[in-house]
Amino acid sequence: MSTPSEPHHLSDLPSPALIVDLPGLDANLRAMDALLPGTRLRPHVKAFKTTALAARLAADGHTGFCAATPREVEGLVSAGLGEDILLANESLDVARLGALRDSANITVAVDSEATIDAAARGNVESVLIDVEVGLPRCGCDVADAGRLADLARSRGLNVRGVMGYEGHLMMVDDRQERADRVGEAMAQLLAAAEAVGGDIVSGGGTGTFDTNTWCTEIQAGSYTLMDTHYDGLDLPFAPACFIHATVISVSAKGWIVIDAGLKSLGMDHGDPSWGHGDVFFCSDEHTTLVPTDGSTWRVGDTTTITPAHIDPTVAKHQTMWVTNGASVVDRWDVDLRHW
Amino acid sequence: MSTPSEPHHLSDLPSPALIVDLPGLDANLRAMDALLPGTRLRPHVKAFKTTALAARLAADGHTGFCAATPREVEGLVSAGLGEDILLANESLDVARLGALRDSANITVAVDSEATIDAAARGNVESVLIDVEVGLPRCGCDVADAGRLADLARSRGLNVRGVMGYEGHLMMVDDRQERADRVGEAMAQLLAAAEAVGGDIVSGGGTGTFDTNTWCTEIQAGSYTLMDTHYDGLDLPFAPACFIHATVISVSAKGWIVIDAGLKSLGMDHGDPSWGHGDVFFCSDEHTTLVPTDGSTWRVGDTTTITPAHIDPTVAKHQTMWVTNGASVVDRWDVDLRHW
Repeated sequence: MSTPSEPHHLSDLPSPALIVDLPGLDANLRAMDALLPGTRLRPHVKAFKTTALAARLAADGHTGFCAATPREVEGLVSAGLGEDILLANESLDVARLGALRDSANITVAVDSEATIDAAARGNVESVLIDVEVGLPRCGCDVADAGRLADLARSRGLNVRGVMGYEGHLMMVDDRQERADRVGEAMAQLLAAAEAVGGDIVSGGGTGTFDTNTWCTEIQAGSYTLMDTHYDGLDLPFAPACFIHATVISVSAKGWIVIDAGLKSLGMDHGDPSWGHGDVFFCSDEHTTLVPTDGSTWRVGDTTTITPAHIDPTVAKHQTMWVTNGASVVDRWDVDLRHW
Repeated sequence: MSTPSEPHHLSDLPSPALIVDLPGLDANLRAMDALLPGTRLRPHVKAFKTTALAARLAADGHTGFCAATPREVEGLVSAGLGEDILLANESLDVARLGALRDSANITVAVDSEATIDAAARGNVESVLIDVEVGLPRCGCDVADAGRLADLARSRGLNVRGVMGYEGHLMMVDDRQERADRVGEAMAQLLAAAEAVGGDIVSGGGTGTFDTNTWCTEIQAGSYTLMDTHYDGLDLPFAPACFIHATVISVSAKGWIVIDAGLKSLGMDHGDPSWGHGDVFFCSDEHTTLVPTDGSTWRVGDTTTITPAHIDPTVAKHQTMWVTNGASVVDRWDVDLRHW
């Protein structure tokens, strides 16, 4: 049962395998595209780390991308997707991006004198001033944004505008409260934008894709494959990415064991879920499941579990198998991994 | 700051980087070797997924290895470490191991008619009967072990003995209670061994390496790089594996941000720890830290964090940088990843 070169059916796949349900993915892309067409959306590739999927988004008109690591930027450029890439994260390792200046349009986030200095020395062309809008992470104080923009311009950098990520608000359950609090955060970002200049106000994510009506572009990525974590919200997206695994042991005591464990799953949001019962616990290369729907299982059967957090799950796999029902219709390399 | 081909100092490393403290690793290896020399220890490569480290263990006389995936077995064989490899896990994907029969001595765990059938059809030479001894995962009932051994022999398989993993007892705090409960679990395994025959009784792990005095060989791997998770126990091993990262943002509000996040960390045991203060939270590619020891930090400084669970942390990295103080003395490929 080695991996065949061209699997055509779920039963041909290696185990465990990362699978993407194509109709589900398509529905998620359509739902987002309806509200945020073209460059109103700047898809965040960290969620799926796959240039084949990024190319689909570009073909739909979403030609600007977000990245979280220099490696993701390099991979997008290699794949011919370098029309407008934003490294939406601070990095001191940006000379490798400056080296791509002639073949791509790359913008990096900066929030300090040191990151501006690194961008200037690294021959980066453009920057956004990253502003902290409530999430305790990167970003300068609103009051400092104008000074940093001036400094960046004095160093020869093209300051295209601001970004600010309201990540602390992605999971606010109540829609109105979410919208109100996003409004407060974005008021800070708009104040910074006023001081900075430029025409980009970048922010948002899957959780606030429609309540953040202030940004000129939304940095959403998780909506493509979706997370069970977001399921409690009122979002028009559904999980489209799963782990396909094989039952390797069946106990008379009521549990079964599959050959997918925590090394194939993003675990920071907790255990995966299973449509036939309870997830008892995950080991490195096993998950113990307890069927509660009366289903019976034999060694060799296959089943799927739904990871709790897709972004880090995808980052653990080399290949994304694209499926439609039980058919395997494509194979995408997860080619934006590592750093 | 692209990765130089030959980093000699911590400051030359890419960021984030997985680093292994060589003196710490050596001390862990010596402490284990003192109690379990030679083939009394069957090191579990799932913990470090690196044949360079496995080769060190083999040079120390630990020439038999444990693996959790077929891929790990294949990698050990490719590295010339195929003297005696146990796939200590059920798998239906074993024909790929049977294909290596002429170049390595491979044994696989079986716990059912179906896994015995897969081993026989896959041209596997040897098996251990895997017995459930209290951990709700793989393994047959004690009472069924003899029947399965007979079945395996009738299919032409060489039955070398039994294995049983008391994984549910690894973290029992009190030493005496741990020893007593391991004794109860191993009494079951020895009863199965009596029915099965063969000369191997394989079990144990880092948490029970010295309290499990019943097995003929101990399957420990985590002791090499160690986990903070095991730190509460009375074990003679210390963490030797860390994430080296760069400060990318410093807030006047009291936190700093490094460029290592949950995609570079095993998160199933929770957040990493940091010697200078609190870990506020991890994002995909950031960790927000709050210094509490009076230390001050600038953008561009580097620091190390200690992952809570090493096994899945290692599995996220391509390279293990071997360090001694601030010197980088070697570079090991993490070449046993994926499936």
